Amino acid sequence: MRAVVFENYEQFPSLTDVPKPSPGPGEVLLRVAGAGACHSDVSVYRHFKEGQPGAQRPPFVLGHENAGWVEELGEGVSERVKVGEAYLAYGPIGCGHCRKCAKGQDTYCENVATMPYLAVGLGRDGGMAEYVTVPAHHLVPLGDADPVDAAPLSDAGLTPYHAVKQALPHLEGGGRHALVIGLGGLGQIGVQILRALTGATVIATDVKPEARARAEQNGAITVGAGARQAEEIREITGGRGVDAAFDFVGITPTIATAADTLAQGGRLTVVGIAGGTREFSFFTTPYESYITNTYWGTVEDLWEVVDMYRAGQIRPDVERFGMEDALEAYRKLEAGEVSGRAVVVPHGG
Amino acid sequence: MRAVVFENYEQFPSLTDVPKPSPGPGEVLLRVAGAGACHSDVSVYRHFKEGQPGAQRPPFVLGHENAGWVEELGEGVSERVKVGEAYLAYGPIGCGHCRKCAKGQDTYCENVATMPYLAVGLGRDGGMAEYVTVPAHHLVPLGDADPVDAAPLSDAGLTPYHAVKQALPHLEGGGRHALVIGLGGLGQIGVQILRALTGATVIATDVKPEARARAEQNGAITVGAGARQAEEIREITGGRGVDAAFDFVGITPTIATAADTLAQGGRLTVVGIAGGTREFSFFTTPYESYITNTYWGTVEDLWEVVDMYRAGQIRPDVERFGMEDALEAYRKLEAGEVSGRAVVVPHGG
Amino acid sequence: MRAVVFENYEQFPSLTDVPKPSPGPGEVLLRVAGAGACHSDVSVYRHFKEGQPGAQRPPFVLGHENAGWVEELGEGVSERVKVGEAYLAYGPIGCGHCRKCAKGQDTYCENVATMPYLAVGLGRDGGMAEYVTVPAHHLVPLGDADPVDAAPLSDAGLTPYHAVKQALPHLEGGGRHALVIGLGGLGQIGVQILRALTGATVIATDVKPEARARAEQNGAITVGAGARQAEEIREITGGRGVDAAFDFVGITPTIATAADTLAQGGRLTVVGIAGGTREFSFFTTPYESYITNTYWGTVEDLWEVVDMYRAGQIRPDVERFGMEDALEAYRKLEAGEVSGRAVVVPHGG
Amino acid sequence: MRAVVFENYEQFPSLTDVPKPSPGPGEVLLRVAGAGACHSDVSVYRHFKEGQPGAQRPPFVLGHENAGWVEELGEGVSERVKVGEAYLAYGPIGCGHCRKCAKGQDTYCENVATMPYLAVGLGRDGGMAEYVTVPAHHLVPLGDADPVDAAPLSDAGLTPYHAVKQALPHLEGGGRHALVIGLGGLGQIGVQILRALTGATVIATDVKPEARARAEQNGAITVGAGARQAEEIREITGGRGVDAAFDFVGITPTIATAADTLAQGGRLTVVGIAGGTREFSFFTTPYESYITNTYWGTVEDLWEVVDMYRAGQIRPDVERFGMEDALEAYRKLEAGEVSGRAVVVPHGG
Repeated sequence: MRAVVFENYEQFPSLTDVPKPSPGPGEVLLRVAGAGACHSDVSVYRHFKEGQPGAQRPPFVLGHENAGWVEELGEGVSERVKVGEAYLAYGPIGCGHCRKCAKGQDTYCENVATMPYLAVGLGRDGGMAEYVTVPAHHLVPLGDADPVDAAPLSDAGLTPYHAVKQALPHLEGGGRHALVIGLGGLGQIGVQILRALTGATVIATDVKPEARARAEQNGAITVGAGARQAEEIREITGGRGVDAAFDFVGITPTIATAADTLAQGGRLTVVGIAGGTREFSFFTTPYESYITNTYWGTVEDLWEVVDMYRAGQIRPDVERFGMEDALEAYRKLEAGEVSGRAVVVPHGG
Repeated sequence: MRAVVFENYEQFPSLTDVPKPSPGPGEVLLRVAGAGACHSDVSVYRHFKEGQPGAQRPPFVLGHENAGWVEELGEGVSERVKVGEAYLAYGPIGCGHCRKCAKGQDTYCENVATMPYLAVGLGRDGGMAEYVTVPAHHLVPLGDADPVDAAPLSDAGLTPYHAVKQALPHLEGGGRHALVIGLGGLGQIGVQILRALTGATVIATDVKPEARARAEQNGAITVGAGARQAEEIREITGGRGVDAAFDFVGITPTIATAADTLAQGGRLTVVGIAGGTREFSFFTTPYESYITNTYWGTVEDLWEVVDMYRAGQIRPDVERFGMEDALEAYRKLEAGEVSGRAVVVPHGG
Repeated sequence: MRAVVFENYEQFPSLTDVPKPSPGPGEVLLRVAGAGACHSDVSVYRHFKEGQPGAQRPPFVLGHENAGWVEELGEGVSERVKVGEAYLAYGPIGCGHCRKCAKGQDTYCENVATMPYLAVGLGRDGGMAEYVTVPAHHLVPLGDADPVDAAPLSDAGLTPYHAVKQALPHLEGGGRHALVIGLGGLGQIGVQILRALTGATVIATDVKPEARARAEQNGAITVGAGARQAEEIREITGGRGVDAAFDFVGITPTIATAADTLAQGGRLTVVGIAGGTREFSFFTTPYESYITNTYWGTVEDLWEVVDMYRAGQIRPDVERFGMEDALEAYRKLEAGEVSGRAVVVPHGG
Repeated sequence: MRAVVFENYEQFPSLTDVPKPSPGPGEVLLRVAGAGACHSDVSVYRHFKEGQPGAQRPPFVLGHENAGWVEELGEGVSERVKVGEAYLAYGPIGCGHCRKCAKGQDTYCENVATMPYLAVGLGRDGGMAEYVTVPAHHLVPLGDADPVDAAPLSDAGLTPYHAVKQALPHLEGGGRHALVIGLGGLGQIGVQILRALTGATVIATDVKPEARARAEQNGAITVGAGARQAEEIREITGGRGVDAAFDFVGITPTIATAADTLAQGGRLTVVGIAGGTREFSFFTTPYESYITNTYWGTVEDLWEVVDMYRAGQIRPDVERFGMEDALEAYRKLEAGEVSGRAVVVPHGG
């Protein structure tokens, strides 16, 4: 079958033929409906070092945002998983035997350091192909919802969802304010989720005017970059600051903007992995406010992402590519030419 | 000054002249902008018995939903309270010296049994008059928002707000469902609050078609009365039941409808004081679900109600009456002829 | 191998020979260290009707509280599960493909109605035998802790742990009170858990003086049965009532005792399945208090139960029986002659 | 009357005669039973600059940790406040008209910047005198508990209590670990509170062996300073790190020790105001862990501190000084010669 393969470190992937996989015990074979191309993939093939988690042993097929139709059940898989029906696949795969995996939080697997892979498409074969195998208990049924548009939700939906859900106690009630920094794929869905799940005024910022325009369509009040950015944000909050901020960029200046506008008791979640820093000090930190980070989400979260998708509360912005154009998707992604999320559609649709 | 006075038990109130009050230490004198007429007032003058809390010592002026302009500061009141500016008054008045009053939850005052009154307008003179005195620390500033429409929020807004806020942890996340039973003044605002603060699908029900129509305008899906009511509600939830239900009626059949449609872990809050009952049994109660009650709200809640009002998230539906028509407001209220909330406006507007 | 088999409805089990089982895909074979005898087993063979969940298709081996050493790994099981090491087995087995199973809460599996069994030992072969097969992801490592004493923790420890954990927000902080009704196996461990995890004054009650004496050794203040029982409990709380109550009996009078002593905002969890009832009414229920139920616990909970056991915070009171005396364990259990928990030890120890 | 007066900036206080105060509206006059000497007082008279909040307008009487007997009620104070009975006084005084003051959290008053004082004894006359006036609604009844030992609880008890209470959700359940750094007055009470309210293993550290010895008596496992400190702490947690850390010192190295030993999802609360710093970075911060700060506590918290004190769960370690030896108390405090908390006892006892 055709697949996008990460052949080796610091090397652009190839579109090539690989054998169709077979599901092991507890796994299913998925006929891929859509596979999202993610900036993390670019990091893997451009920047990751030998042995780095997520890229441990090339070659492997890329693609950790996958949806598809169940084609075949591996040994021991219950027939409750229906052959022919559409599912979204949770990407992370933990050891399955620690207390984090026990509650479906494979992302924080206590044995991650000794796992041979992080996720489907990150260390083991992913969904950027005609078929992919995934653990059966990681499937979330899509019903009659479109599986192509759903594919990116397993990362671009799940990551902001988990970040927002952890912050919901800060946003419960009237008079709250949320801030979203970075209005790419994850940030736009972050705005949608905040607007749907909270009563907070959602303030959004990005350097690109067209990204801000889309955020406004999604219900945010936007602020541009510039010297008065933090001041403008604080003014919108009536001077009190934001109760929850989400930084999908994560460079030092964006973390600063968010930290400088936090309210007492506010929570700043850094989602973007650009490695920015910020200094804590008793005297500069509003009381009981803090900065934290999150990574991806849980299986239970993904069920709720699908609920929101099916209810029309999350509306992914997808650009589709056929299997033969899959490398073009990565080229456009690297060039910053993808608006929304690039999804490879191996079987047409 | 003119005032609506509860003269004696089981007697319709009179519109009469009473002396203009003076603020005691820690109190302010409020020039009344609006005073809401509430069904509780009807209970007081129609049904309450001698000495019953809330009606301990007639005569007193009715009116526990009050907003107005500060006219005069009592001794010891900070000048941060601005003469001439508009405030909404929190109604309940506790002992001020117990652990519940210490956090602004006068409703659950531990010394309520020995208090001479429950609230402004419930055992001491209320706001159905030209002027009223209230404790200064119970004022919430309205800024430039309309104080007449605001008046009923101190009960008809605060009560559903508190009930919803306690239930928010049940409604956090995608795929949740809420149920509102009884679409009068409180229920409609309950729908608005649920729609604004949560991502839940809001299901609403009432026997009156016009009340259901208004709830639909407020964003609810409605279900009529009838034999299939509980079944229809459950169907909307995909069979899983509602995560939070609010019964603003509180008779046995409405409690039954809500209890019969609860999801696992669901919370049913009975707000209506009609005295209905429901039997708990291990085997008929979905796991970890429950029925509870609430009463009015806290001062902090009222600040957040005002935040929502000023943000346009709560939109009270008000019918205004001049001071001389105040008794007419109660007559229409008793006859079920008030759509929305009747507000007496002593100084015009 | 030797096993205690539930042969048919309304029939005392037999001690007999059955084939040694083989682990399926995703399962392990456990050499049983200990298997607890539970009152639920008695219900199964004395009272359950044909097809009732937990007893769907006799014959099967009893025993849902199991610990042992891994003997063999089924297909697809990671070698992180160590052959020869001791594990406690989580009993409930859900469909594995719903949102409850996705977070290790098999007890509340959304497909329970169509599952062929409820748990190991409840509808499929359990641990009252030399060997048992269990799903590999349901194992919690015991390290060097005694697996015989650990066995009953998978129900008699997990059930009170889950009930207490859900109630912890009610017990956070100084000045709290907890009530435990019913001081058998689960109740005594409930007292230990409450004393270890909270600062609450723990009040415990039971008709048997020796059970109360043991609860006192576990750190509780005890109250006897009798007409003044609720009054005495309330006096210990300084009149405010208990913040969390746990009824391990569940008959109407014990539910009444607990409900009558609840504080405002208190939570009564009925754990005992005796089917008692209690009427909710707005006017008799302290504000924001409620009655609810729970059933068993989650895999994550079981990890924490093991943490407490290894830290000496949970100390099960175990009476050991050899394999050949297994039926005697049930006879004594039915006669009320077991102090603590009866554990069958098939391989000596 | 005799009083310890902060006469001017950067000047040791004097013991002198000042007029006996009179309670204003809403205040009471307290006959002082005990007034705790706090390191913050030393900061005020040694280091604070002109106009700095807490020292705005010398001269004033020091003493923000006060307990005493009510001597006289100011105008408008309810007779529920009992003349002759003992109360502990909450120290902070906010504007009384913002949303934080509305819930008894004067510490985070939104108008703190324009308040003439921070607290009794910090900008207005405190309790280091025979009499002091305090707002009546800030009193917590002590019943028959010793008011002298109670005095320091209004800061040295309330501050660690609030810090711990905010962190309780991180410590709920089995297998949790807490870390206390700095075993002076607040740290020792912090250990007592953690031991009483949680089931966590409490790890404590300080450079002084005698402080560690006392922490061990309070139930902590202690670790000394030195190069392997963080490593030793992590070993005690089985490698997983601490779920909640409390740094009562707050210099950069202590913050580092705590931050380096945090578990995933852990919370580090910096209480000590030494101004240390720590850099956040996505890659060095365990997922969903964070550093925050807190300041003093709420009135409701103080009620619960008194509950714990009366239950024997908090046991302050007090060294008493007569009024005439009050300056000696500050001298010994500065010299590091006070073990526990110095309390001035103006009326003997």
